Amino acid sequence: MTRILRVDMKRGLCSFNDNQEYAGLGGRALTSTIVAKEVNPASAPLGPGNRLVFAPGLLGGTNCVNSGRISVGCKSPMTLGIKEANSGGQAGGYLARLGLDALVIEDQAPTGQWLMLELKSGQARLLPAPEAGLNNYDTVARLEKIYPGCAFITIGRAGEYRLTAASIAFTGRDGRPSRQAARGGVGAVMGSKGLKAIIIDPGETQGPPLTDPETFRASAHRFTEILRAHPVCGHSLATYGSAGLLGLLNESGALPTRNFSSGRFEKFESVSGEELNRLTITRGGQGRVARGCMSGCIMNCSGLFPDRNGQVVGKWPDFETLWAFGPNTGINDLDAIARYDRLCDDVGVDTIDVGGAIALLMEAGILKFGQAKQALQLVKDINRGTPLSRIIGSGAALTGRIYGLNRVAVVKGQALPAFDPRSVKGQGVTFATNPQGADHTAGLSYTGNLLSLGSEVDPLSREGQVELSRRTQISAATVDSLGLCLFVSFAIFETPDALKAIVEMLNARHGTTLTEANLNSLGRKVLETELDFNRRAGLTEASDRLPDFFIEEKVGPHQSTFDIKNSKLDSVLKW
Amino acid sequence: MTRILRVDMKRGLCSFNDNQEYAGLGGRALTSTIVAKEVNPASAPLGPGNRLVFAPGLLGGTNCVNSGRISVGCKSPMTLGIKEANSGGQAGGYLARLGLDALVIEDQAPTGQWLMLELKSGQARLLPAPEAGLNNYDTVARLEKIYPGCAFITIGRAGEYRLTAASIAFTGRDGRPSRQAARGGVGAVMGSKGLKAIIIDPGETQGPPLTDPETFRASAHRFTEILRAHPVCGHSLATYGSAGLLGLLNESGALPTRNFSSGRFEKFESVSGEELNRLTITRGGQGRVARGCMSGCIMNCSGLFPDRNGQVVGKWPDFETLWAFGPNTGINDLDAIARYDRLCDDVGVDTIDVGGAIALLMEAGILKFGQAKQALQLVKDINRGTPLSRIIGSGAALTGRIYGLNRVAVVKGQALPAFDPRSVKGQGVTFATNPQGADHTAGLSYTGNLLSLGSEVDPLSREGQVELSRRTQISAATVDSLGLCLFVSFAIFETPDALKAIVEMLNARHGTTLTEANLNSLGRKVLETELDFNRRAGLTEASDRLPDFFIEEKVGPHQSTFDIKNSKLDSVLKW
Repeated sequence: MTRILRVDMKRGLCSFNDNQEYAGLGGRALTSTIVAKEVNPASAPLGPGNRLVFAPGLLGGTNCVNSGRISVGCKSPMTLGIKEANSGGQAGGYLARLGLDALVIEDQAPTGQWLMLELKSGQARLLPAPEAGLNNYDTVARLEKIYPGCAFITIGRAGEYRLTAASIAFTGRDGRPSRQAARGGVGAVMGSKGLKAIIIDPGETQGPPLTDPETFRASAHRFTEILRAHPVCGHSLATYGSAGLLGLLNESGALPTRNFSSGRFEKFESVSGEELNRLTITRGGQGRVARGCMSGCIMNCSGLFPDRNGQVVGKWPDFETLWAFGPNTGINDLDAIARYDRLCDDVGVDTIDVGGAIALLMEAGILKFGQAKQALQLVKDINRGTPLSRIIGSGAALTGRIYGLNRVAVVKGQALPAFDPRSVKGQGVTFATNPQGADHTAGLSYTGNLLSLGSEVDPLSREGQVELSRRTQISAATVDSLGLCLFVSFAIFETPDALKAIVEMLNARHGTTLTEANLNSLGRKVLETELDFNRRAGLTEASDRLPDFFIEEKVGPHQSTFDIKNSKLDSVLKW
Repeated sequence: MTRILRVDMKRGLCSFNDNQEYAGLGGRALTSTIVAKEVNPASAPLGPGNRLVFAPGLLGGTNCVNSGRISVGCKSPMTLGIKEANSGGQAGGYLARLGLDALVIEDQAPTGQWLMLELKSGQARLLPAPEAGLNNYDTVARLEKIYPGCAFITIGRAGEYRLTAASIAFTGRDGRPSRQAARGGVGAVMGSKGLKAIIIDPGETQGPPLTDPETFRASAHRFTEILRAHPVCGHSLATYGSAGLLGLLNESGALPTRNFSSGRFEKFESVSGEELNRLTITRGGQGRVARGCMSGCIMNCSGLFPDRNGQVVGKWPDFETLWAFGPNTGINDLDAIARYDRLCDDVGVDTIDVGGAIALLMEAGILKFGQAKQALQLVKDINRGTPLSRIIGSGAALTGRIYGLNRVAVVKGQALPAFDPRSVKGQGVTFATNPQGADHTAGLSYTGNLLSLGSEVDPLSREGQVELSRRTQISAATVDSLGLCLFVSFAIFETPDALKAIVEMLNARHGTTLTEANLNSLGRKVLETELDFNRRAGLTEASDRLPDFFIEEKVGPHQSTFDIKNSKLDSVLKW
């Protein structure tokens, strides 16, 4: 049985329902299935027919470590296909503790009305939002006074403007609205509903009921051990953040630089995870390393980045953010990047797509590569909704079209993250074929290409990429459905009994008799559901392609092109 | 045998070829067939793989009246499908007289280089363009000094910027670059090739050879009689221009007003064809009524619009232009509309899509409905490439996305022209299903809905619209392939022996033995070819739909919605 809170924005009604149809699903599996069943694929993404779905994962709310992620689903105004954007923060765990499997936002508030949804003491109601026109930090500061200790889900001005790169912010363990379901314009959909904020009061709730507490405890313990023992999950992430990857990518020649015109950034060290760590420690003050974004996190990939005076600028920028506003724009200034991250968190936009858009403006000559100050001003201008800031806030694909550019690194209208598909081809296959569009969470295919985790596939060869991509896409879809942080994948790929521990926890939580094979089936089913939605929405195999320039233009240092045949791409999600 | 001039922009080479593969095709049939065969449907529209094709029609260059239209084909950067944009002016007739069936522009000039193509004395060569950064009027003024009496095909700054609503300008009989292949961003493709201008010197050439001059003369004479005898072709067009339609549309309640929020404009009389005629005559000076855009025109739907001092502002704005910057933006000022038309002609953008974009900005509150001065300034700003002007210069669909709007009247990314599909449903079916996207030249279905020409179909009923749309789409594809002005359709639909005269001319010109049925087959074949390209480009039946709001939102005065079933739409181009 699935417990769903449905919110009718038009009529102002909230209703709790127990649903059989979606039984056994959670997280991305649940959001994608609800969207696929309830949203007409032909409908306008910003129209009343779209639905915005929030769902914690199948392990959400439990004592399993790193299980509090939340999935956000809808038809994307950016890709025009199905979307699942994933975030950390407190909301996922709290919703699960409240016994809620999903929150479905339907229809739209009357034009000009901004509402907020309050979830408290088992009740749900819509109230007028305290103030529209505020960004995430100010909105949360207002709400925190009224609802201390609650989790908040909010949009900033970008979401109010319904920009196609608008994100949805989630407050983290530290109360900051710096955790983002960032991709595909989910914030624009929340804006189109007239929903400014969601308040989740966890009250005195404990974890959800367990069928077999004993087994759960033992398996959860084992899973913790597995993560702690792994060099990435147990050490690197807490030391360098996700930015630890940057040096590896640069060494591999797969770090897209200056709008994907090179695979190496000559100043990569100044924006690396090592430098992030060093600056945070040497500057001291309020800076912190090794912080988790959500309760129950033991990988602690985040931190608080201090300015020169030791004041917190914002969270540690994630790897893709560091790259998007660093190497790919030719900016080699960690302070500027941290500022960028904070501005994006606040106004509520995706750092990858907006960074990609800025790199395109640089390619178009509107500003120069490396001009950090001018680029930051553009991001600040999103507050005022200036035309140019709306353009970049609409992401890379639309920016490329408005400026008549041809070298635009997007798939299905969504910007590529920090991996040049020509030099880490498994990742390229994933960007091309995943139903979400080019997405950093679609499948960690680089683990096989660059880290030999779970498999070893030459990143420059054509061989083995399809299988690698397929395997990691399925794995990511599964992990996203469980509510686990995708970074547990590093350990899962290398530890023989990791999946066993996960399956045992699932069965001990839900009273099921799943096997490891069932987990794999779940991931496949998610991808099938998403692909089917996309096909019905009119996205054909022609959308499962990288832009021409990756095929036609060689990139250094390897002078490589993306040379995986279309027929191979079309085989990835067929099994 | 088809004579084609191929221009390799990258290598600077021009070559004339006789081609068997495309025999029997002309105009739109030829451009669409060449694009479908030679352009990879998956390729980037602004990349080197796209081709830009110019072709006069099968009757081009002859003494048949109104036979000098020219088709421009490519993959569209706006619809991302196939495009044929059609223009009057002198180029079509001149190319045909030079014995050229098509001009194919391939690849791209090196970045930053602007070239022009000179066609003179049987030779073709690429030369540096005299000056980039000029608009159409200044460019033509420069060229006219070097090449007096030639026809010119040019782009303005919008084409240089590769804006997705950029047009290609053709000089008319009066030497003004006011005839536009406007739709679908063909000007952006010309810009992406680095081609600023084409000069066509007709030299001493006469009409093309005729197999049976005697029959041709007789049939051409009969065809002339048919046009002259028809009330629209022989009288209304020369008196009121295409704008004669405006009053009829308003009376029918199908004239989209203030971004399609009403079907009637309370001040329609001040922007009507009657007023256009009256002002032109009463102001006098250089103003003129009843001018043809090309040699051999006897319908003379154009004119020269004088300002208050009798100085020419520009050509008579066409019906769609009057509507786009008139009722649909709430502007009731013919002087402002004429100024708008002139600005669009000069910088080189489509008046329909840019007008649609401006109406959307008004809906978004960026300016107010009726604010002519501010709207004109936005169009002027396209010269400077300001962000907001680039947005409107990219057309309605992209403007709608950048401003997060839901009521965006486009199909396949192209703006709807001046017919509300809810109140003239045959036209709605055509806008939804034609492979060109919503296009004013895709099929004159309103002739059956509003004028009872050729058929009589209640515009508000569901009955008969599919058949009406199919018939008029086939007819338009045929007429566009012959090089005839689409306005001859009014007479063709009503005169029993009109098609006979056309077939006789074709056979007497080409030595063929075509029948009227062959003409119909030609139109069908064109549509099949275009549809097939679109499907291969990834445009599915999901793209053959009107925006949701036409289905969900009633429009006055009839309180009608667009209620033709999807299955019906999917049957239109199946026979």
